[in-house]
Amino acid sequence: MKRNVVIIGGSAAGITAALTARRHYPDAKITLIRKEEKVPIPCGIPYIFGTLGSPEKNLMPEDPLIKNDIELIIDEVVSIDRSSKAVKTKGGREIGYDKLILATGSVPIVPPIPGVELGNVFTIKKDVNYLARILEALGEARDVVIIGGGFIGMEIADECCKRGNLNVTVVEMLPHCLALVFEDELCVAAEEELSKRGARIRTGEKAKAIVGDGKVEYVELESGEKIKADVVILAIGVRPNAQLAKEAGLELGPLGGVAVDRYMRTTDPDIFAVGDCAEKFDFFTGKPSPLRLASIATAEARIAGANLFELRRENKGVVGVFSTKIGDVALGLAGIDERRAREAGIDFVVGVSESVDRHPGGMPGATPTKVKLVFRRYSGAIIGGCVRGGEGAGEMVNLISAMIQSGMHADQIALFQMGTHPALTASPVAYQIVNAAEIALSQMR
Amino acid sequence: MKRNVVIIGGSAAGITAALTARRHYPDAKITLIRKEEKVPIPCGIPYIFGTLGSPEKNLMPEDPLIKNDIELIIDEVVSIDRSSKAVKTKGGREIGYDKLILATGSVPIVPPIPGVELGNVFTIKKDVNYLARILEALGEARDVVIIGGGFIGMEIADECCKRGNLNVTVVEMLPHCLALVFEDELCVAAEEELSKRGARIRTGEKAKAIVGDGKVEYVELESGEKIKADVVILAIGVRPNAQLAKEAGLELGPLGGVAVDRYMRTTDPDIFAVGDCAEKFDFFTGKPSPLRLASIATAEARIAGANLFELRRENKGVVGVFSTKIGDVALGLAGIDERRAREAGIDFVVGVSESVDRHPGGMPGATPTKVKLVFRRYSGAIIGGCVRGGEGAGEMVNLISAMIQSGMHADQIALFQMGTHPALTASPVAYQIVNAAEIALSQMR
Repeated sequence: MKRNVVIIGGSAAGITAALTARRHYPDAKITLIRKEEKVPIPCGIPYIFGTLGSPEKNLMPEDPLIKNDIELIIDEVVSIDRSSKAVKTKGGREIGYDKLILATGSVPIVPPIPGVELGNVFTIKKDVNYLARILEALGEARDVVIIGGGFIGMEIADECCKRGNLNVTVVEMLPHCLALVFEDELCVAAEEELSKRGARIRTGEKAKAIVGDGKVEYVELESGEKIKADVVILAIGVRPNAQLAKEAGLELGPLGGVAVDRYMRTTDPDIFAVGDCAEKFDFFTGKPSPLRLASIATAEARIAGANLFELRRENKGVVGVFSTKIGDVALGLAGIDERRAREAGIDFVVGVSESVDRHPGGMPGATPTKVKLVFRRYSGAIIGGCVRGGEGAGEMVNLISAMIQSGMHADQIALFQMGTHPALTASPVAYQIVNAAEIALSQMR
Repeated sequence: MKRNVVIIGGSAAGITAALTARRHYPDAKITLIRKEEKVPIPCGIPYIFGTLGSPEKNLMPEDPLIKNDIELIIDEVVSIDRSSKAVKTKGGREIGYDKLILATGSVPIVPPIPGVELGNVFTIKKDVNYLARILEALGEARDVVIIGGGFIGMEIADECCKRGNLNVTVVEMLPHCLALVFEDELCVAAEEELSKRGARIRTGEKAKAIVGDGKVEYVELESGEKIKADVVILAIGVRPNAQLAKEAGLELGPLGGVAVDRYMRTTDPDIFAVGDCAEKFDFFTGKPSPLRLASIATAEARIAGANLFELRRENKGVVGVFSTKIGDVALGLAGIDERRAREAGIDFVVGVSESVDRHPGGMPGATPTKVKLVFRRYSGAIIGGCVRGGEGAGEMVNLISAMIQSGMHADQIALFQMGTHPALTASPVAYQIVNAAEIALSQMR
């Protein structure tokens, strides 16, 4: 059995790599191998526990693979033989490749706390059956403790609150939830929203032990507080799943991901790595980046898929574009915010503008929406922006991201021509991104 | 009485010019003269008739003027004396200026049809009392005919339908409503939505006469059809209000607006013109542009306000960014669509991508959202894009507009790093703008 392109992993990165390979190399024989019968949509996982109500409603569609003539094999790759250019599977298959793409993702970090092995203590695995077990446990629970107040933790907490019959507590060791990504103002907004929903938030607190007899009964914090828990969800973060690559003798990067060059090639030029399993670097600083997002994974997959047989695309590094919705507030960040700019020693100016996201303010659904943009002081180049407000924040951070990636400057943004409409956006007089640029400019003169 | 800066007109252009002048020239004495006691938000006018329910709920806020120390005079300027650099008002004021900005807007076009002078036949004037009279007439009406199926006409028709007790008919002489701006697919989507709301649409039909005894009773079409009407709204379009400029001896442009250079200066270097009253040119072709939008007006005002005492900003011409919502569908266009590209003789390729604007598709409010992007065939530069779908379309066309204005190419857009979130955007695998670029690329090779 021999294929032109073999892809290991069937989540966002693997699928996007396969589709991109198909577009760029129409005649290639492409095979995607994944170990899961069904693959959950990674970003959708928190919503299984409330809004969606079932892991079956959060599955990666397989249509695109079928339509694009991608062979799908459900099996687990156990080794890569680089000399013969073939992979071996648990099911006994041996499949040759011209080009191999690793999209093996990440695995949840389990913190070194006593009691993590107890019943009803879960991590967030991208595994439909496992997620169904969490859902079942939540169905019988009254008290849930979520350890880790990052995106996944906060979104799961929010969804657990929506169930209406759970006491939900989030334990976060940093001074604020979401503090790894957002600056305080946005973190506080998220915490307030979640509190309004009824969740309890313990920031600056570390879980010391998970305690129970067979099954979890409570979580003990380092402060001594004990929090009742029928279910504990560990949402600490993930680490790259680079085992297969390591065993095949491929180099790993400083943060434990598979080392890749700007073309997404590993140290073996016939093997590419993309998504959570691959090492990343920062768009602004060029330094290793710990960010792991599905949207980064797909961008990398679009590079690798195009580069398989000819180097066509180059990775510029991770800009970092985030969005979430907690309670009724949408939050987003593209690039470097004020805090990170300060940490990086960048001389910057900030422009802030707030307005409702409809006009006039009496239009239904109008939500105050605040934009803060960060510019280099002398060149005026935009390097970041965050948005807090209505659902339009999702595409507004993308707009800011486009401005960053295309190298726009404050004076261009102040003259940005946007479309506005009463039912869709802020007014043209008050359009936040433009006014934030104008305000920043007044500090550059 | 002598001021550094005098602005004539208090709608979006005038206010934005005043605020920009204040930011750029902190010490200037700035006066804004407008003839209206209260100024309606121009884009919000259709929503007075349904969603908002009153012209009083659609007023330009005056806070920004007060906060920025802009003197506001309610009076009508009747002449400009360029030799003495002063304006005279109906109220007998004579106010000197160093720099003058004309933001006198536009006036509705009244078509040359018999019967336009009848009772209950209205245009759309930016006048609160007049708009209140329309609202009053609608309150007593059963049959409404809207002549002109452009943005304003369609939005008013949609709002009239929301009232629930009106028979609404739109008469449009072109083959489709909105056809001056959108290509057929988007026009048809809007027509279908409006029909679902209960409106009747007569396209390819011209109103021949408005008939009645004192008050309108029916509208007669050229086809012979007679449509009952208690109220007729003429929404044909606007023409620049350049009377004052003309009388002052300033040159007008080929489309009847006040002629301006790239710095928004009229033929008198101490007089600027912005917004609907000013002549415009196209970003792509450099030719005169008939577009009149509040968002164009504010961009011009941000140029003029900065250039008053020193030339700091240059007008690059009108990109043309539109968005609207008819029924449940949001529609938008930035730049040049397929049809206009063809008319302009541009060699182009198109990429189309459709996906729901949430992920998975079962997330609440998920709406199929289709993006079509237009690129120059050889350079790959993006020159336009349209969006049809959920409310995110408003900021998605702005994102496309940023890509156009910053000169991004298809290969950069295919690698665009966006943020995605289940409750806010399409999935990273299916993100429409990126996939449309990828699809277009496959036709460029």
